[in-house]
Amino acid sequence: MQKEESLPLFHSIVQPTLLLDEKRAQVNIAFMAAKAQKAGVRFRPHFKTHQSAEIGEWFRPHGVDAITVSSVEMAVYFAAHGWQDITIAFPVNLRQIDALNDLARRVRLALLVESTHSAAFLAANLRAPADVWVKIDVGAGRTGLPWDHPERLLPIVEVLRAAPRLRLRGLLTHAGHTYGAGSATGVREIYAESLQRLESPLALLQQASGQSLEISVGDTPACTLVEDLSGVDEIRPGNFIFYDAEQYLWGTCRAGQIAVGVACPVVAVHPERETVVVYGGAIHLNKDFTNYRGQRAYGLVALPTDHGWSEPLDGAYVSSLSQEHGLIHVPQPWLDSIQVGGLLVILPAHSCLAVTALRRYLSLDGRTIATMNA
Amino acid sequence: MQKEESLPLFHSIVQPTLLLDEKRAQVNIAFMAAKAQKAGVRFRPHFKTHQSAEIGEWFRPHGVDAITVSSVEMAVYFAAHGWQDITIAFPVNLRQIDALNDLARRVRLALLVESTHSAAFLAANLRAPADVWVKIDVGAGRTGLPWDHPERLLPIVEVLRAAPRLRLRGLLTHAGHTYGAGSATGVREIYAESLQRLESPLALLQQASGQSLEISVGDTPACTLVEDLSGVDEIRPGNFIFYDAEQYLWGTCRAGQIAVGVACPVVAVHPERETVVVYGGAIHLNKDFTNYRGQRAYGLVALPTDHGWSEPLDGAYVSSLSQEHGLIHVPQPWLDSIQVGGLLVILPAHSCLAVTALRRYLSLDGRTIATMNA
Repeated sequence: MQKEESLPLFHSIVQPTLLLDEKRAQVNIAFMAAKAQKAGVRFRPHFKTHQSAEIGEWFRPHGVDAITVSSVEMAVYFAAHGWQDITIAFPVNLRQIDALNDLARRVRLALLVESTHSAAFLAANLRAPADVWVKIDVGAGRTGLPWDHPERLLPIVEVLRAAPRLRLRGLLTHAGHTYGAGSATGVREIYAESLQRLESPLALLQQASGQSLEISVGDTPACTLVEDLSGVDEIRPGNFIFYDAEQYLWGTCRAGQIAVGVACPVVAVHPERETVVVYGGAIHLNKDFTNYRGQRAYGLVALPTDHGWSEPLDGAYVSSLSQEHGLIHVPQPWLDSIQVGGLLVILPAHSCLAVTALRRYLSLDGRTIATMNA
Repeated sequence: MQKEESLPLFHSIVQPTLLLDEKRAQVNIAFMAAKAQKAGVRFRPHFKTHQSAEIGEWFRPHGVDAITVSSVEMAVYFAAHGWQDITIAFPVNLRQIDALNDLARRVRLALLVESTHSAAFLAANLRAPADVWVKIDVGAGRTGLPWDHPERLLPIVEVLRAAPRLRLRGLLTHAGHTYGAGSATGVREIYAESLQRLESPLALLQQASGQSLEISVGDTPACTLVEDLSGVDEIRPGNFIFYDAEQYLWGTCRAGQIAVGVACPVVAVHPERETVVVYGGAIHLNKDFTNYRGQRAYGLVALPTDHGWSEPLDGAYVSSLSQEHGLIHVPQPWLDSIQVGGLLVILPAHSCLAVTALRRYLSLDGRTIATMNA
């Protein structure tokens, strides 16, 4: 028999449901806020992970009044919920200039540029003041000006100097390649290298602009694992509020820090191939995966307990997702505790994407918490 | 300069937007309906792909009055929009028994079972008549009773015979392994093999039940490519209404049959590494991928045109997705026609998942069409 009967909450769950362990999330927030305070850096958490006005309020007691978002739509949502200092950490989307103008009139808005074209467009079309960060690629290879060509910053600075409403703030980077570092030591090395790679662009930019400028960094692995963050002005981690299976497998967090899980009904058990089928597929978890013992894993697996969910079951993982089906590899010893009609809790590979897919939380004390998409 | 200015529709697009070429979808529907009619098989289209009451209506002029869905929620939605004969082609989720009872009272409902446990639960708890199909795994390895152990059907038949409200209809299968067949010939071989693998279970089931039973099959590649479908009683394809990059790359459809694309704003161009960055990421497309010339491709790429979008750009593909960013590999010759502030149209790897993620369509004549999640 599964233990799900223990926590009354589980009785009410009939379809894939995003569970939130609020206590864990609160501990995660307090940890990161204290770390930033100790280092003397601004804590501008990325709200793309939780996407919830209610959860956003949990940051305020820690002195947080500035946030990061990943889209104009998300900025509009959080501005409507009282946030007055918002960085959209995504290369500015020129087609949304009308919404940007509206936002810039209402809040302190910061935008990312990485081309003279975008800078010139903002100079010509933005009707209210805004901060501008230049996005630098320190090695992740996603987007941004390459760190080793700092001269490309100069024409952008020229444009910004001539634009009275645009205030250059500094260099912003997301060292997303810490996500593949493989170890805490690897993460710390990438972090140190990233800061080093920003030195020359920062010096050039300060010289060209005649200003003292800032550095903003963002990834959860580095912000969690690097002991001393005092070398930067601002940190923008997001995922740390919930962490997920991937961060756990990489050693960024312990299992007991993972604050979201997806409760999924069991619809079939195939003992002969150690497979359990759940109602819970790509539309609930998003089809992102991580590596678990050499296998593609869309999540790890836990059992419902009296207090939420168990530690991840050793050797169990989500091996395949189709639209609504999740296939879970469950080693023989665990199969006896799983039956059709029961529930499993999937710890998603990537919590941000599962939150976006499922759109609302059920806290362990039974409250529904909305996101911007609910 | 991009050609997007040609079709006025594109001017209004500022964020990732699911475009629907209604004419193509209508042609795809007419093609499959005619094929089913010619073969003398019931056409029970799977509505999990479009998930839209309005689009569902397009099937009625073709004589369609029976549909397939992939969840109880979807059955409830389409029942509320006038569909009276609904198969939920997913192993029955016992935790949703209340909703199933409500549905079974209102429509002709068909459920899938693959264990005596589920059959017995339905026998004891379903309060209105329902059809039951036994799910058989003919080699896809997702779920279902294995075709080569037909004896496992017998205890299920025993339970169903003793359950006056449950009507055994036959064997249902989804030969999802046609999705990896690699060629039209491969698809046809898998289809023939699947039918052969159903022979022995069907004979045993008919003998045990004393009834004449049916066969229901479902995958888009086989339903599209197999010339003669007369060997089955019912087909349940879904994806064929839109197709997608994956079906195109496998040879199931031509590019001109792909009926959905995701218009995405260009936010950065990196000519030195032949990369374009768009606003359009994992939360818009879902992180499913296919294989394009040996590379992981989350979609193919087209340019906006006067009539919708171009053929896929040769050599271009979505190489990486993060939460909001799409990275597109664009070979040098195409880069000149792409600029920051313009639009690209991504043909998603998997249209069903992009539809679920984006939740509403914009038809090429400018109408918004809702889905069940809009």
